[in-house]
Amino acid sequence: MRDDVILLDHGSGGLASAELISQIFLTRYGNPVLAELEDSAILDRPAGRIAFTTDGYVVDPIFFPGGDIGSLAVHGTVNDLAMRGAVPLSLSVSFIFEEGLPVRTIEQIASSIAQATARARVSISAGDTKVVPRGKADKVFITTSGLGVVPDGVELSTKRARPGDRILVSGTIGDHGATILTQRSGLTFSGGLASDTAPLHDLVRSILEGATGAVRAFRDPTRGGVATVLCEIASRSGLEIEVDEASIPIRPEVASACEILGLDPLYLANEGKCIAVVSPDMAKDVEGLMHARPEGQEAAVIGEVRDGRPGRVILRTAAGGLRVLRPLSGMPLPRIC
Amino acid sequence: MRDDVILLDHGSGGLASAELISQIFLTRYGNPVLAELEDSAILDRPAGRIAFTTDGYVVDPIFFPGGDIGSLAVHGTVNDLAMRGAVPLSLSVSFIFEEGLPVRTIEQIASSIAQATARARVSISAGDTKVVPRGKADKVFITTSGLGVVPDGVELSTKRARPGDRILVSGTIGDHGATILTQRSGLTFSGGLASDTAPLHDLVRSILEGATGAVRAFRDPTRGGVATVLCEIASRSGLEIEVDEASIPIRPEVASACEILGLDPLYLANEGKCIAVVSPDMAKDVEGLMHARPEGQEAAVIGEVRDGRPGRVILRTAAGGLRVLRPLSGMPLPRIC
Repeated sequence: MRDDVILLDHGSGGLASAELISQIFLTRYGNPVLAELEDSAILDRPAGRIAFTTDGYVVDPIFFPGGDIGSLAVHGTVNDLAMRGAVPLSLSVSFIFEEGLPVRTIEQIASSIAQATARARVSISAGDTKVVPRGKADKVFITTSGLGVVPDGVELSTKRARPGDRILVSGTIGDHGATILTQRSGLTFSGGLASDTAPLHDLVRSILEGATGAVRAFRDPTRGGVATVLCEIASRSGLEIEVDEASIPIRPEVASACEILGLDPLYLANEGKCIAVVSPDMAKDVEGLMHARPEGQEAAVIGEVRDGRPGRVILRTAAGGLRVLRPLSGMPLPRIC
Repeated sequence: MRDDVILLDHGSGGLASAELISQIFLTRYGNPVLAELEDSAILDRPAGRIAFTTDGYVVDPIFFPGGDIGSLAVHGTVNDLAMRGAVPLSLSVSFIFEEGLPVRTIEQIASSIAQATARARVSISAGDTKVVPRGKADKVFITTSGLGVVPDGVELSTKRARPGDRILVSGTIGDHGATILTQRSGLTFSGGLASDTAPLHDLVRSILEGATGAVRAFRDPTRGGVATVLCEIASRSGLEIEVDEASIPIRPEVASACEILGLDPLYLANEGKCIAVVSPDMAKDVEGLMHARPEGQEAAVIGEVRDGRPGRVILRTAAGGLRVLRPLSGMPLPRIC
């Protein structure tokens, strides 16, 4: 690249845009489909139903312990596909850059995207790059969309929860949210805090193959955290959920950060964890399958679905009390992902 | 909605986000797939190869004569699918809002998206909403992705251009770019200027069905304009293109705006036009099929592909001279789409 910062010209669709795409993106995550640079990518006819998802990423800061906006965007979209049981097939990556952003920063993000897609064994088939004048965006926003193939017989939906089903979480909660908010707080402590951003499709596949029919639904508790996702499951299934606070895995450093910052880890975003609703007779099997994988080593059964007040989620606190959990409200935690 | 402006809470993934989605978006462009509100939408197994595309929209102003950022985003993605011969199947819509944006504005954009998708007979299956603090974005950015199905036998690619092929444009050029730049210039003249934003998939389908095998490639000359697209076709096919300036349709008001603003209409964005590369014996048929549709009434044959210097595009000017056209460079026209 001739320039060391991004210019408006890089978003104008002409020579500078072409240079940015070929030198920064194609070198790092190019492939024959993306390199065609036509108006759409053409993919082979898929071997099943299609899962389709999109998410925007506006995280601040864009680099943080455990990841960056690039890996976060890839993992987030891979995980949204995985939560419906889909095998990720192809992603699109659309950037909005602020004029003046160092090209070096874009290279770092593109390298991180390349690593994350290689790790998740998914290719990028489509992309776009826009540049807005200085002060009209904040550094970089990324929107990823994803396509996956849902194997025949896989039917996952939060509506499928039944009384008696167990609620599992695949690992410790609050890591991503606590890390971002600590970074932004200006506090200097951060020892051991790191985002959990990671792809979950291999964990999901090992469960779907190893315990066929066991799982009713997966959800990844990103924005809104575990509490909000549990409320959504209870609401959509028309059932009640009780969770046991003492059984919810949480790292001591996340618990400390929450105490200092006055945050509830149940409402903090996770970026490499899932909640699974599992039929009761298979809950231990699924927990075992989670434990067998590095990303699920701290998985735990944390609660149960039951008849009761539709949509209600009750937390049995570590002190033995009961507390109703409601969806996140009035606690804006912006730019967490 | 309880609030009349967008708040950070609307992007936090909790109750306020759910209210925004259900009251503003689902009421306007909801459908059973979108209303599931799961992590991914599940679509039936498609009946052919898949076309996949993405684009970010950062246009300024967000409302302009002939359209707005919402209709522009829908048409842009529909057209990127259509350019590969795909029948649009499903779109995703991801918003980034600036805190403080009036909810009324979002309602207008959502209504416009609903109208554009209904007109294009395509559904929205996935979406996302983020909110960033005041001053960290400019009102609203939209990223749309699209899925389409490519009928068997349809093989369109700019690499397929052959010597002798004719170059057609489906209508007048520069309308969108001239409209946006005039709006932004602070000039008060604008009589008759309007964006050409429109879906092109019906035009494409009527050509593919009415003149099977005639078209080598379609491209929509958005950012970079007709000149940049012609350079891309010449470059990828390894051939030379000559175009005849006098045959290129342009509205008098666009020509006037270009003169006043010092712009070349060949480099201005179009949002409802396509360039077609057509085998010579079928060029008149394709022109006739374009003329038969309202969006192609001013279609014209404007040039020819030939052996020559690979990648070169020559304009035969109205005055009879020759001018080499190069891809857009050094003329940043930001936030045009």
